[in-house]
Amino acid sequence: MDKSVKCYGSRDALYKLQDKDSLFLCVIATTLTSRIPGITGAGASPELTDYTPAADVELIVHGVPKCLPEIPQTVVGDEAAPTPAVITKASLEIADIPFLVADAGSVVKPSLPYVNINDKQGGDIATGNAVDDPEDIFNKGKLLGKTLSKFTDHLIIGESTPAGTTTALGVLAAMGYDAWGKVSGSTPENPHTLKRQTVEKGMESAGLKDNIPLDPFQAVKIVGDPMIPAVAGIAAGSTVPVTLAGGTQMTAVCALLKEAVKDFDFDKISIATTIFVATDETADINYIARQIGPINIFAVDPGFEKSENRGLQKYTKGAVKEGAGAGGAMLAAQLKGVPIDEVRNKTEELCREIFKN
Amino acid sequence: MDKSVKCYGSRDALYKLQDKDSLFLCVIATTLTSRIPGITGAGASPELTDYTPAADVELIVHGVPKCLPEIPQTVVGDEAAPTPAVITKASLEIADIPFLVADAGSVVKPSLPYVNINDKQGGDIATGNAVDDPEDIFNKGKLLGKTLSKFTDHLIIGESTPAGTTTALGVLAAMGYDAWGKVSGSTPENPHTLKRQTVEKGMESAGLKDNIPLDPFQAVKIVGDPMIPAVAGIAAGSTVPVTLAGGTQMTAVCALLKEAVKDFDFDKISIATTIFVATDETADINYIARQIGPINIFAVDPGFEKSENRGLQKYTKGAVKEGAGAGGAMLAAQLKGVPIDEVRNKTEELCREIFKN
Repeated sequence: MDKSVKCYGSRDALYKLQDKDSLFLCVIATTLTSRIPGITGAGASPELTDYTPAADVELIVHGVPKCLPEIPQTVVGDEAAPTPAVITKASLEIADIPFLVADAGSVVKPSLPYVNINDKQGGDIATGNAVDDPEDIFNKGKLLGKTLSKFTDHLIIGESTPAGTTTALGVLAAMGYDAWGKVSGSTPENPHTLKRQTVEKGMESAGLKDNIPLDPFQAVKIVGDPMIPAVAGIAAGSTVPVTLAGGTQMTAVCALLKEAVKDFDFDKISIATTIFVATDETADINYIARQIGPINIFAVDPGFEKSENRGLQKYTKGAVKEGAGAGGAMLAAQLKGVPIDEVRNKTEELCREIFKN
Repeated sequence: MDKSVKCYGSRDALYKLQDKDSLFLCVIATTLTSRIPGITGAGASPELTDYTPAADVELIVHGVPKCLPEIPQTVVGDEAAPTPAVITKASLEIADIPFLVADAGSVVKPSLPYVNINDKQGGDIATGNAVDDPEDIFNKGKLLGKTLSKFTDHLIIGESTPAGTTTALGVLAAMGYDAWGKVSGSTPENPHTLKRQTVEKGMESAGLKDNIPLDPFQAVKIVGDPMIPAVAGIAAGSTVPVTLAGGTQMTAVCALLKEAVKDFDFDKISIATTIFVATDETADINYIARQIGPINIFAVDPGFEKSENRGLQKYTKGAVKEGAGAGGAMLAAQLKGVPIDEVRNKTEELCREIFKN
């Protein structure tokens, strides 16, 4: 495991998770923010980003998306890279890790049984009206986390939220963290200026630009997304170790946890992501995390440069990077003793089956 | 345990479940059938039956119903008997059994995280249009059953579906079983004539009265409810032993399982109910079950005649009888070594807290 997992923080935290039973929960959400042209690559068009989270989890469960005819891919120039959900599927199947879906508020519902935490999708943060009642979502998440931790020794929480780095930036900035130009993104060219303008417009629309740092739930309410309080709540309610499977979006979850949970113990959580996020030159997950607390970050390298699949190779060029908890799913497989080469081979096999390439 | 659990079938099946980890899932649904005046006691008025399932599971999770100001009670003459959800809550809490909720189609959604299997409530069976796509609900249930059985050694499935004995009668009769006058009910006076007329009207409306026995999914589609295919699907998908926690409604689930699953093995499932259903003189659960297959039925006697709580005493006079999986929850507590007297004492304690009586 050691070679393919880069640790920022304590490697001991990683050893403690070895050979434990894991449960992987993917939390999905959509927002009107993802409809802003150019803000995300997680969908062939701004309108199609509505379908990406549902299609991702359908792909993992059914092997095909049911909500739309096209399989979600990130468009990079003329070519497409496969959704990271295929990495998640490969990892969980090969390591026999149970998979559950929770809806934190997505407009397109997946055709499979999922846990309802919140029904309504997020707004466009530029309006300053992002999430109606983040505290209610957090509290329902807490109940779910408490229940799920009765079924497992280790809870892994992934997410699929198009434009989620922009809404994470919103929450971080509104809470007073220096995150401008530091969040990652799903395209090689990270549209930092557009992200910043969108967040600043939201703060202005809400009339709160001069009140920073805001209360965390207020930050989510005006410039966040429903995934953030849902995942924070689940982590807060869990009585077992939690791995937040995602990139810079998960730092916003940590920021919320720090403020919403009295004396929050960072030993309870880790962030697991892909090497593509950790080494993203257009972003800095560690810079953000250090401002919040002693968060262990693990970054998994699937070695896609060794792959002959052109779509997967695009990941090494900055496309996609992370999503649907791909980094955390790969880590979970490795914690159960599956070598990373097997994860990559299985991912390639699924790409051949699903994308015919 | 032996004294308070009456067995119809194999007591060995019960011993096999002892000391196993259990997971209790309550499946909720509503139908327009419960709006027919006089058909059910599960709500203070026909309109309020819409709230009963959500209020039941909210009571179990939160200790109070959140969707309505009144706590669900079954009205018997001038007095009210407490919802059986309080027995379920007492049993699960005292035995520390995890509780999950799944929505098979209820019009009022509970304020807690729940698994969405189906969104839309059932119609009025008198119209012959009861459930849009029972096979889709069954298939989603199967996926859920498969997943949940990764988390437990024993899956207990309860239900809360007002007028559910009428819709169960519909499915049984449409599948060709002799169930007229044999289903139980939530009031001392079992309105058999009204139930039969409603079912027959539905078969006539659908133009299928002369085509009996019908295919099981067609039976549900015209005169059933969404809970039945959901619970049957979950049981079909489970890889661990399943206890169907309910009364005569669960025989309709068994009838569906027998037809929908090739070579269905009845050793995999049991029905657990209360002594009030098993000894109901207005009904005959064993008569129905014997027509379907070798189904083990366990009936738990909480000894409410020993209680000083007047609401609980009403159970011994034929009120309520069962619901929210009360019988199965009591059985689960006993399988974990909790004596029935402790379950009754805890139920009384909760009644004092919740109903102030």
